[in-house]
Amino acid sequence: MDRYAATATATALYEALATGDRPALAALLHPEFEGHTTAGMPLGLGGSYRSADDMLRNFWGRIAKHYSAKAVPKEFHVLDDDRLSVSGSYVGTAKDSGKALDAEFVHVLGFEGGRISRLDQLTDTQAWHEALSGTTRFETIDYSVRDGVAVICLNRPNERNAIDLRLGEELLEVARLCAGDSAVRAVLFRGNGPALTVGGDIGYFTANGGAQYGELFRRMTGPFHEAFRIFDRLDAPIVTAAHGSVAGGGLGFVYAADIVYAAPGTKFVTAFAAIGLSGDGGGTWHLPRLIGPRRAAQMYLENRALDADEAVEWGLITEVVAAEQLEDRAFSTAATLAAGPTKAFGRMRSLLHSSWTNSLSEQLTEESEGIAYSGATADAANAIASFVAKQRPTFEGR
Amino acid sequence: MDRYAATATATALYEALATGDRPALAALLHPEFEGHTTAGMPLGLGGSYRSADDMLRNFWGRIAKHYSAKAVPKEFHVLDDDRLSVSGSYVGTAKDSGKALDAEFVHVLGFEGGRISRLDQLTDTQAWHEALSGTTRFETIDYSVRDGVAVICLNRPNERNAIDLRLGEELLEVARLCAGDSAVRAVLFRGNGPALTVGGDIGYFTANGGAQYGELFRRMTGPFHEAFRIFDRLDAPIVTAAHGSVAGGGLGFVYAADIVYAAPGTKFVTAFAAIGLSGDGGGTWHLPRLIGPRRAAQMYLENRALDADEAVEWGLITEVVAAEQLEDRAFSTAATLAAGPTKAFGRMRSLLHSSWTNSLSEQLTEESEGIAYSGATADAANAIASFVAKQRPTFEGR
Amino acid sequence: MDRYAATATATALYEALATGDRPALAALLHPEFEGHTTAGMPLGLGGSYRSADDMLRNFWGRIAKHYSAKAVPKEFHVLDDDRLSVSGSYVGTAKDSGKALDAEFVHVLGFEGGRISRLDQLTDTQAWHEALSGTTRFETIDYSVRDGVAVICLNRPNERNAIDLRLGEELLEVARLCAGDSAVRAVLFRGNGPALTVGGDIGYFTANGGAQYGELFRRMTGPFHEAFRIFDRLDAPIVTAAHGSVAGGGLGFVYAADIVYAAPGTKFVTAFAAIGLSGDGGGTWHLPRLIGPRRAAQMYLENRALDADEAVEWGLITEVVAAEQLEDRAFSTAATLAAGPTKAFGRMRSLLHSSWTNSLSEQLTEESEGIAYSGATADAANAIASFVAKQRPTFEGR
Repeated sequence: MDRYAATATATALYEALATGDRPALAALLHPEFEGHTTAGMPLGLGGSYRSADDMLRNFWGRIAKHYSAKAVPKEFHVLDDDRLSVSGSYVGTAKDSGKALDAEFVHVLGFEGGRISRLDQLTDTQAWHEALSGTTRFETIDYSVRDGVAVICLNRPNERNAIDLRLGEELLEVARLCAGDSAVRAVLFRGNGPALTVGGDIGYFTANGGAQYGELFRRMTGPFHEAFRIFDRLDAPIVTAAHGSVAGGGLGFVYAADIVYAAPGTKFVTAFAAIGLSGDGGGTWHLPRLIGPRRAAQMYLENRALDADEAVEWGLITEVVAAEQLEDRAFSTAATLAAGPTKAFGRMRSLLHSSWTNSLSEQLTEESEGIAYSGATADAANAIASFVAKQRPTFEGR
Repeated sequence: MDRYAATATATALYEALATGDRPALAALLHPEFEGHTTAGMPLGLGGSYRSADDMLRNFWGRIAKHYSAKAVPKEFHVLDDDRLSVSGSYVGTAKDSGKALDAEFVHVLGFEGGRISRLDQLTDTQAWHEALSGTTRFETIDYSVRDGVAVICLNRPNERNAIDLRLGEELLEVARLCAGDSAVRAVLFRGNGPALTVGGDIGYFTANGGAQYGELFRRMTGPFHEAFRIFDRLDAPIVTAAHGSVAGGGLGFVYAADIVYAAPGTKFVTAFAAIGLSGDGGGTWHLPRLIGPRRAAQMYLENRALDADEAVEWGLITEVVAAEQLEDRAFSTAATLAAGPTKAFGRMRSLLHSSWTNSLSEQLTEESEGIAYSGATADAANAIASFVAKQRPTFEGR
Repeated sequence: MDRYAATATATALYEALATGDRPALAALLHPEFEGHTTAGMPLGLGGSYRSADDMLRNFWGRIAKHYSAKAVPKEFHVLDDDRLSVSGSYVGTAKDSGKALDAEFVHVLGFEGGRISRLDQLTDTQAWHEALSGTTRFETIDYSVRDGVAVICLNRPNERNAIDLRLGEELLEVARLCAGDSAVRAVLFRGNGPALTVGGDIGYFTANGGAQYGELFRRMTGPFHEAFRIFDRLDAPIVTAAHGSVAGGGLGFVYAADIVYAAPGTKFVTAFAAIGLSGDGGGTWHLPRLIGPRRAAQMYLENRALDADEAVEWGLITEVVAAEQLEDRAFSTAATLAAGPTKAFGRMRSLLHSSWTNSLSEQLTEESEGIAYSGATADAANAIASFVAKQRPTFEGR
């Protein structure tokens, strides 16, 4: 295919995409079309698509659900293997947030028999995420940002917020949103329905695991654990409001938080031993530190359940809060933290976490670096001046 | 010595050993005979013997006490340095357990002046251990396996189970028995007599240390600590029943356990400061984690004793149990754990232990591997199916 | 300058120093004189001096305040670059302690235009420290040694023992005195005035930080943290008596101690978040271990204050002691520890501290080494003999 024909075909593709002309698209794509899209795309859109139909429904179709945007090509270059490289930008808005999308791309198109047989997409995926943030609608999570607080509400109430693969993937998505959004200065975890979360979705296990639970659990814990790695590194402090039950890997939402409130009667249980599993969600790291090795052994080996009062006494959670005040109290604490010295909080969190693998001497060195870093912020300068002036400090998170 | 003479002498040796003919043996062995036996032999039998008499009394004599077995040679080969290599098998039974022994061996015999001047033994030592297991009679420990529970009962009641070198060596022996026996799915530590253990045997120190306590303590802690390294890596959960006193290095039996019960009034004390020692048994690792650094400092530097109630409150032990119920309760808990998902328990134990030197991120990775591993067991598949069918699961430890 | 002239000039220098003849000194030194003194000198005397006046006032002048001593030259050697090497000893006494000073030195003198343009001093700094010890008078700390107890009393009562740069530097000084003095077998921290310490001196921050708090905090935490590294490695156990407030980096005096007493009503608070700082003094290492991560997060992020009773309950301190008995009780405990097996205590302390970065297996190896080391001390031999003889042991710290 010569340069002219390739460019004309590509131009036709962008026109058909912009107008949503499915018959035209079907005609332009080779029956054995393959699409490869950027790994960091939101909503799980990054990956491989194995047919024209797969690409139409699961990539472009899902983009159209969440964004009003089009791909605007700017330059066309033929490569030495006859493929065509197209650079340009996606421009438009994310539907739910109304926020603008402006993301550069390069598409490399391959051709066979006059049709497009392959598309390799590389785009600035952070721009796609930023456009979504604010009111992104996920299937299993309600996500919103208010008063500097990212509220992450687990939202499978009929399944008592049981954790399936999608919830793990969407949790990873919102973790990335929080990490990429400097307006997020605190995070709040809560759950819709009767429980914060009962842990892994056993119905999902049996529907998808077959006799292959090993591989299923590896796949499920991948994004779920990666999300907690990101939450662990946030500057923003994390508050969790627990009610009903918190079981299994769902205890990860307790471990990940700095401050945890629970309604009276909330039950905390690892539950793994009952189904022959060693567990996930970070409990083998957090529990010995939070409640001591003796009690951690009981919770793992004997499946000992704690109620909310015991959970405070043992150091697993911060405080019991009446059910009708739980949501307000948790949000209010998160909002207070969001109005704090975010940079210093970030350093405190990272020092408290890295503490466990440092010697005292190493930690003292890191504390010196941390206080020099936080001491150089505008927040510290203003707060020290306020202190001297006997005024209440205001923190802007910088 | 030619091949024929060497083989004939060797054959005479095996006949004399089989019939226990000591005069014949004495005639066959050179006055400066040396024996070198396989390091992993049970009962401390592995090592070097420096005379015919030493070999007769301390190696063959002690084997004869514990086993009814003979060495059956199969092949004889002269080596290029004129030594004779004999391969064959030990066959017979262990006396206490009645279990069969069938262990391959190679003996390399050296000769001088027509007599055997040296024997180097290599044998399948695990087979020797397995034959002993079940009801091996040790001098300082009662060991038996019942309902999947290895019961390790310290048995020097007149010395309140004070720890001497032999007790440490036998503890290492039973640790290896537990690790090598897949029928062991839980371990129970207890003690005969008035106390679980008062710690190091001070009478033994003064009788054997002279002014050389440093070297003595190095030798005594060698097998004692190695035993705890093995218990730490077992899949099988560990329960300890404490009563009377638990002092000094004897606290190792508390630290090594997942679940610890104690009779009312049991006294826990490190006692090291009183005799000018820094301590053993793993306390400097376990105590800061179990009871916190502030209280660990009191127990070490001020020799602060805890009673059973304080020990629960501080997180050192799990529960106080009435003295008359202690043994039954501890065995019952161990038996319940022995009927659990042993592979998942093993992974939980190893994750809870390795937790302390891992970063959270590393631990999350190991948890993913652990849940993929345990998820692939028959126990997990059956338990998940039982859960869905609302039935009680049965675990077979695989 | 030839050998004779150089030696004559040097001799004149030592005479002028001995008689305190400032005009003569001024005449002997080049206007662009530079002095470089040994890093380990006490009282912050080690370092570089950039003019004759700087050297006269801040080096020789301050030495004269604290010591009655003179530099006695013994040998003069001309170096191949025409500098003169003078070796000899400082002899005299430290003024406050009355203790003798006898410290070898080498001075290397450079010359320009007949005057001394440079002096490089190397001396046995430990001898300087030892002469001071006993009753060294610092500006911000009272230091004395009694009954084997080094009493370190913070002494800025009008500033509630707020920590400025000098207090940090003097703390480092006394840490080195404790480490270098084998008569010190326990350490006691206390404070004059209404509080143990309110933490960093905010007046000092604003007077010295300008908009440059980052650099100021790096400089201030340098000696302060180095002092705590040294206290962490002492053989001598540490007791702290807290009263009034203990805030901010001042909590380092609580963390550094093995045993901590506090008067009723003493308030413990990190206070860093209020002024936008991530903190110092080792709290991010110690607090999660002492009180658990859940409560440490409250004390850091929410600036939660503890009173003395809560501090005991949470494991931050050892015991509440009536205000009027606090000083006696703390000294009495320190004196008891000072009469204990100092070598074994040192090993316990180092094992308890290194515990956190060791695996259990590594720690068991270090415990074996520790008990072999402490078992070889005279204190252990005597205490074991006393135990057998049913007598009270006496420990001499060796």
